[in-house]
Amino acid sequence: MAEYIPLPLLTAAEQFSKLPGIGMKTAQRLAYYLLTMPENDVEVFSKALISARKSVRICPVCQNFTGQEDCRICGDFRRQKEVICVVESPKDVTAFERAGSFAGVYHVLHGALSPMDGIGPEKIRVKELMARLNGDITEVIMATGPTVEGEATASYISRLIKTMGIKVTRLAYGLPVGAALEFADDVTLAHALDNRNEM
Amino acid sequence: MAEYIPLPLLTAAEQFSKLPGIGMKTAQRLAYYLLTMPENDVEVFSKALISARKSVRICPVCQNFTGQEDCRICGDFRRQKEVICVVESPKDVTAFERAGSFAGVYHVLHGALSPMDGIGPEKIRVKELMARLNGDITEVIMATGPTVEGEATASYISRLIKTMGIKVTRLAYGLPVGAALEFADDVTLAHALDNRNEM
Repeated sequence: MAEYIPLPLLTAAEQFSKLPGIGMKTAQRLAYYLLTMPENDVEVFSKALISARKSVRICPVCQNFTGQEDCRICGDFRRQKEVICVVESPKDVTAFERAGSFAGVYHVLHGALSPMDGIGPEKIRVKELMARLNGDITEVIMATGPTVEGEATASYISRLIKTMGIKVTRLAYGLPVGAALEFADDVTLAHALDNRNEM
Repeated sequence: MAEYIPLPLLTAAEQFSKLPGIGMKTAQRLAYYLLTMPENDVEVFSKALISARKSVRICPVCQNFTGQEDCRICGDFRRQKEVICVVESPKDVTAFERAGSFAGVYHVLHGALSPMDGIGPEKIRVKELMARLNGDITEVIMATGPTVEGEATASYISRLIKTMGIKVTRLAYGLPVGAALEFADDVTLAHALDNRNEM
């Protein structure tokens, strides 16, 4: 490859290909695209990457990413501090906030239990969650993913919390709104039936 | 969005989303991924982008991208300078060189004729190609894409060149090697039949 792609272009392509979901072919396409961008735009792009990496911190309370010193969600006096929604990743917080249906606070685990991959409770932020659970907390909502790992994580943490006498809930399983029933998988359909509500 | 994604992260995501084929959702995923990378890796990435943009030049002869002052292909004394293969983009040169079956030199048009999009001969590097056509050139291979635009470009340029008495050829159409015949489209199949060779 190095023989007919200019080296700086190849280097840029290799860097792109390190990103998740970007193969060498897409990476090369992106690198070639750089050459069509105004030089100033490339610099703005380049600086935005460094700035994101350097200025984004982790909130010492909820463990979510935050740009300022104080986390905007934990620092918001209008939010119910008694209800904690436990999620796997910052992207999940984004999803909940986009939906706008949750008024409590979050706790980001930065992962899910996965013994197969050697991810035990000490690798995700369970300890930090336990440290937050004082007498003021009335409910912990386990909003980890609808996967084997997410389920295992919810189950493990709920056992820890129940011993403290705090209510633990789990997100409902059911049909996704707008999807065709015929495409729902068996497990989802069984859950949707089990959790049916009176109309 | 800005309310719950840290601003520097949002800025990085917006920059990613300017790249071709990267939507806002993928862009956000990439921006989040930056935070998991070692800070030094992000800097290396960032610098590679600027370096690619700044140090890659266009060869004054073949118009291909080149990293050094001299184009490695045009400057290679082993290549046949009498045969010019005309392609739409630098990526096409990469494809030919990977195949390793062409020993001549290239001419990169940086586009194809597309009257619908307002791309006429003056917007692609036709003038530069004509300037290369002296008495030493024995053949010009039109290797523009197998599309309406590529075909129109090949046809337009070949008419110009024929008046100079230089041989012009076009890449063969036919079945792609390894593909199932049943999936070939009608036009390709008709071409494959027309251009059949004796065994």
